[in-house]
Amino acid sequence: MARRTKIYEGKAKILYEGPEPGTLVQYFKDDATAFNAAKKDVIEGKGVLNNRLSEFFMTGLNELGVPTHFIRRINMREQLIRAVEIIPLEVVVRNIAAGSISKRLGIEEGTALPRPIVEFYYKDDKLGDPLVSEEHILAFGWASHQDLDDMVSLALRVNDFLSGVMMGVGIRLVDFKIEIGRVFEGDFQRLIVADEISPDSCRLWDIKSGEKLDKDVFRRDLGNLTDAYAEVARRLGVMPTNATPITKPKLMN
Amino acid sequence: MARRTKIYEGKAKILYEGPEPGTLVQYFKDDATAFNAAKKDVIEGKGVLNNRLSEFFMTGLNELGVPTHFIRRINMREQLIRAVEIIPLEVVVRNIAAGSISKRLGIEEGTALPRPIVEFYYKDDKLGDPLVSEEHILAFGWASHQDLDDMVSLALRVNDFLSGVMMGVGIRLVDFKIEIGRVFEGDFQRLIVADEISPDSCRLWDIKSGEKLDKDVFRRDLGNLTDAYAEVARRLGVMPTNATPITKPKLMN
Repeated sequence: MARRTKIYEGKAKILYEGPEPGTLVQYFKDDATAFNAAKKDVIEGKGVLNNRLSEFFMTGLNELGVPTHFIRRINMREQLIRAVEIIPLEVVVRNIAAGSISKRLGIEEGTALPRPIVEFYYKDDKLGDPLVSEEHILAFGWASHQDLDDMVSLALRVNDFLSGVMMGVGIRLVDFKIEIGRVFEGDFQRLIVADEISPDSCRLWDIKSGEKLDKDVFRRDLGNLTDAYAEVARRLGVMPTNATPITKPKLMN
Repeated sequence: MARRTKIYEGKAKILYEGPEPGTLVQYFKDDATAFNAAKKDVIEGKGVLNNRLSEFFMTGLNELGVPTHFIRRINMREQLIRAVEIIPLEVVVRNIAAGSISKRLGIEEGTALPRPIVEFYYKDDKLGDPLVSEEHILAFGWASHQDLDDMVSLALRVNDFLSGVMMGVGIRLVDFKIEIGRVFEGDFQRLIVADEISPDSCRLWDIKSGEKLDKDVFRRDLGNLTDAYAEVARRLGVMPTNATPITKPKLMN
């Protein structure tokens, strides 16, 4: 392949032009940032783990009929994805209070929420990704009423699935963030899950010990981030040495 | 407790009057039956495993806001449940063709279905639990249009969650059956997941080997049924010696 065209570089990933129209190559960097990049580091191996884990989760979602941008993994750090028009909202689903909702609403971390709560944050680094309400979203035209319904529905399906995946391996899915994009099929548009699903974008607590297995390890200086992510991958049988997570080895034999 | 009143005895479970109004005690027997009880056996330890596994899955569903009849486990073989008015339909969700859909529609076992398919079977042992369409259900008044919508929605949420749980431990959720019941809250009725969720009511295939870890082991004489169910419990950290599956030991340390 000739030198590729870089389409976009974010804090943790780079998007390159894909081999076919409508596709992109998503490259996972080792860069970790927090607090809107006020804290930064390079965490060796993080990108490899997130590439694998995002593949694992998105493959499972695709199989269940929850559409995602994931097509296939290309190599250790890259995956082929569908090009989408990203909706400029971070969609957060929370099962247990932690992080910003604890601070904003004075709910102690670890408190179970009455039901899964879906929040929207406007994607704008300069503004620090502020929380927005449906009223803002509709008024500024970031998404339509139908889009909002579809986004909530997608986000809750991801929550059901991902909570299950994690519960199966002794991990509580506290919250997670997804991004959602539009794809156009003839005259119709459809919303699909985009970006990534990885410990960078989830809070994951070991059910027994309460140990954090997500980016809070980095945000709060709790230890080695790669070790935490590798532990998640290990429990799920998503080993960097396997060709595909579908044919992963039995965990327990 | 005085000698309890038996409310109902089925093929694999007994329901007793519960300690409070609106509750029942569900007892898991070791009896295994297949082909509408044409094949029968007693499989030692099956009831204990299914009591634990149903607790594990229903606890996870309750936490996600998918309402179920499960209140708490009482002992090795019994759990406290909400009394419901059972809707006389078995609700089946299929991700991969196997069993009756393969025979009826000539789809080779193991074929991925285009999307999860929800089927209804009329619960009547004498008739062999025949497949019915929504037309039959509405015409005979077994459920209303709204009930059907709610049942499909519950069934698909269970599918998202349970597929995730299983994928996390290297198992493909091929299909499963649930029963759904009505509870009355003031003037309103609500539908909740009832009966059990266990390897008796699912098809579970090891992703790597294709090995069956469900009641087909019994139906098709493929080996020791308890071993298969214990393998599922072991991967999920649901050990009969633990007090609660929530505080289960780390699987991989």
